[in-house]
Amino acid sequence: MPSDLARPPSPLARAELGSRVTAALAAYLDTQVALLDRIGPEVEPLARIARDFVLDGGKRLRPAFAYWGFRGAGGQDSDALIRAVSGLEMLQAGALVHDDVMDGSDTRRGAPSVHRQFSALHRLENWRGSAETFGESAAILLGNLCMIWAGSMLYSSGLPQQTLAGATPVFDEMRTELMAGQYLDVMQQAAADERVESAMTVARFKSAKYTVEKPLHLGAALAGEPATSDVRAAYTAFGLPIGEAFQMRDDVLGVFGDPAETGKPAGDDLREGKRTVLVAMTLRRATPAQAAAVRDRLGDATLDSEGVAELRTVIDGSGALAEVERLIADRTAQALAALELAPVVPEARDTLAALAVAATARRV
Amino acid sequence: MPSDLARPPSPLARAELGSRVTAALAAYLDTQVALLDRIGPEVEPLARIARDFVLDGGKRLRPAFAYWGFRGAGGQDSDALIRAVSGLEMLQAGALVHDDVMDGSDTRRGAPSVHRQFSALHRLENWRGSAETFGESAAILLGNLCMIWAGSMLYSSGLPQQTLAGATPVFDEMRTELMAGQYLDVMQQAAADERVESAMTVARFKSAKYTVEKPLHLGAALAGEPATSDVRAAYTAFGLPIGEAFQMRDDVLGVFGDPAETGKPAGDDLREGKRTVLVAMTLRRATPAQAAAVRDRLGDATLDSEGVAELRTVIDGSGALAEVERLIADRTAQALAALELAPVVPEARDTLAALAVAATARRV
Repeated sequence: MPSDLARPPSPLARAELGSRVTAALAAYLDTQVALLDRIGPEVEPLARIARDFVLDGGKRLRPAFAYWGFRGAGGQDSDALIRAVSGLEMLQAGALVHDDVMDGSDTRRGAPSVHRQFSALHRLENWRGSAETFGESAAILLGNLCMIWAGSMLYSSGLPQQTLAGATPVFDEMRTELMAGQYLDVMQQAAADERVESAMTVARFKSAKYTVEKPLHLGAALAGEPATSDVRAAYTAFGLPIGEAFQMRDDVLGVFGDPAETGKPAGDDLREGKRTVLVAMTLRRATPAQAAAVRDRLGDATLDSEGVAELRTVIDGSGALAEVERLIADRTAQALAALELAPVVPEARDTLAALAVAATARRV
Repeated sequence: MPSDLARPPSPLARAELGSRVTAALAAYLDTQVALLDRIGPEVEPLARIARDFVLDGGKRLRPAFAYWGFRGAGGQDSDALIRAVSGLEMLQAGALVHDDVMDGSDTRRGAPSVHRQFSALHRLENWRGSAETFGESAAILLGNLCMIWAGSMLYSSGLPQQTLAGATPVFDEMRTELMAGQYLDVMQQAAADERVESAMTVARFKSAKYTVEKPLHLGAALAGEPATSDVRAAYTAFGLPIGEAFQMRDDVLGVFGDPAETGKPAGDDLREGKRTVLVAMTLRRATPAQAAAVRDRLGDATLDSEGVAELRTVIDGSGALAEVERLIADRTAQALAALELAPVVPEARDTLAALAVAATARRV
């Protein structure tokens, strides 16, 4: 729980940070759209779809952890800092666009996924060849652009060069771990790996490190904290459990979430056959007959709402849902306890605590 | 022609640069393979295939242009510089891996393409789901890794921070233009765009700028030359025509090249329906009946060697091949004339001239 009750975390301040991140993204995108415009009018859809995708959604969670990681380590707010941390949202946008290609997802945030938007353009223009292949190719390139722009926003942020040099190892390791985590995810799905430990490893690399720990470290590095500092150790002690809790919340929402709130069809994770901690826990706890039914349906792209409902019943009835909720609560408590002891600026501690609670108790 | 006959470009010196680039790539990859190893043994194929792909081929052309762009601007050789420019080879590796996914290419450099290697792994391990989809997903992630490592090699090269700050705008613009050029390429193929001007625009962004002009500018920026300097203007005057000639040579090899030398099946560009300058020129010059036959077969994935031979006859007979060869010769002469006047160090001028001739007269 927040230690400094005289200075409660202000939801307004957090909303304001989100607006500043969006403004930094918009300003940066304007320069890139102008550059693409100069290449030729045919590139317009690439620029437009990229801009809309980055600006029309996203929780701005990674920039928030990086920002408060920086402030917690005693850094002073600046527009250059906002621009640097906003690069993490660009990275996330690129990762999501590629994710949707790899998963064959039709929708994202309640709208057609980027590759589907390009497929629709192909059909509208009556181009030749496969609209699907065109959509995927264009989305791969758009995702690459977003990831390139992530680094560009960091290195052209205007932060002192010496500061950027300190952040480089964190930024590099973060992105390498993200790709390795994504590979593990895809691979374990293909290998039908049912171990809870395997699902937890993916959660650690794809989410805990990438979403929380590494953004906090990036912020700390930008504030001048070396890799061996107490602040960075504290951010690990806080960030890993809260990041794992965050991913498990995602897993629960992927099965039990309200499509009106998540923007994804109900049960999409089940249709995609995702090997989440929730699913692994279910297979470990279910009766052999129940487990066989889950195995049979997991990854069945044609699963209808009745099938989803039946899987939900097994996941809930096996006790897996309750166990995952318990794990989320435990990890959150562990993270908050570590945060309590962290040698960081009180305002940042309070805000990080609020972010932790919001990220693990969310419904979207 | 080289102006300083007393100091002819040394082929040995160029081969030595290639070895230094390969050594820098190998040393960097060792650190990343170690990082991936720590994540888990399942990530091993990702690390191994990435390492083999980057080290087992590639002309090291972009690092060479960046290196000599730096030396031409008066910069002093260092291992840090080699590491920085080697990042461009990593970028190219990532772009090729994604290219092969987008084109559905089975082979690259005479070996299975990266996504095919991952598909083979999927079959070998008897994993579930589509081996093709797994291969493509893994290759997208591996390509991303290579592109991430490109920036990492530049920013962790050990070059002075102030120098890196000057190179950032060039590096960013180069990558954005590459992605836009790739998009234009895919789009014009889909739109069956037959204009010579369209094919030339793709050649400019995908090749002339990305392969020659921007690497030269990156080198110049690393040597402290501002964007408005005479050296950078001279590099543009040299780099754009030689880069266009380079791409047109590629187009010719894509149709008439010897598979034993190119490592690609004969006529692959025709099967993929690539809208090259050579093809656009053919459609402009051919009789209506010949043009109809070309349109009919272009992009036919089942085109056999007889079909390829017939298309070759039309491309040659229409005079398009001779016209493209003339354009290559003209552009090369124009580039060499510009280089003659460039205010650069003589040794660099001579080597750039030799690189220009090698890149446009090559058979691979």
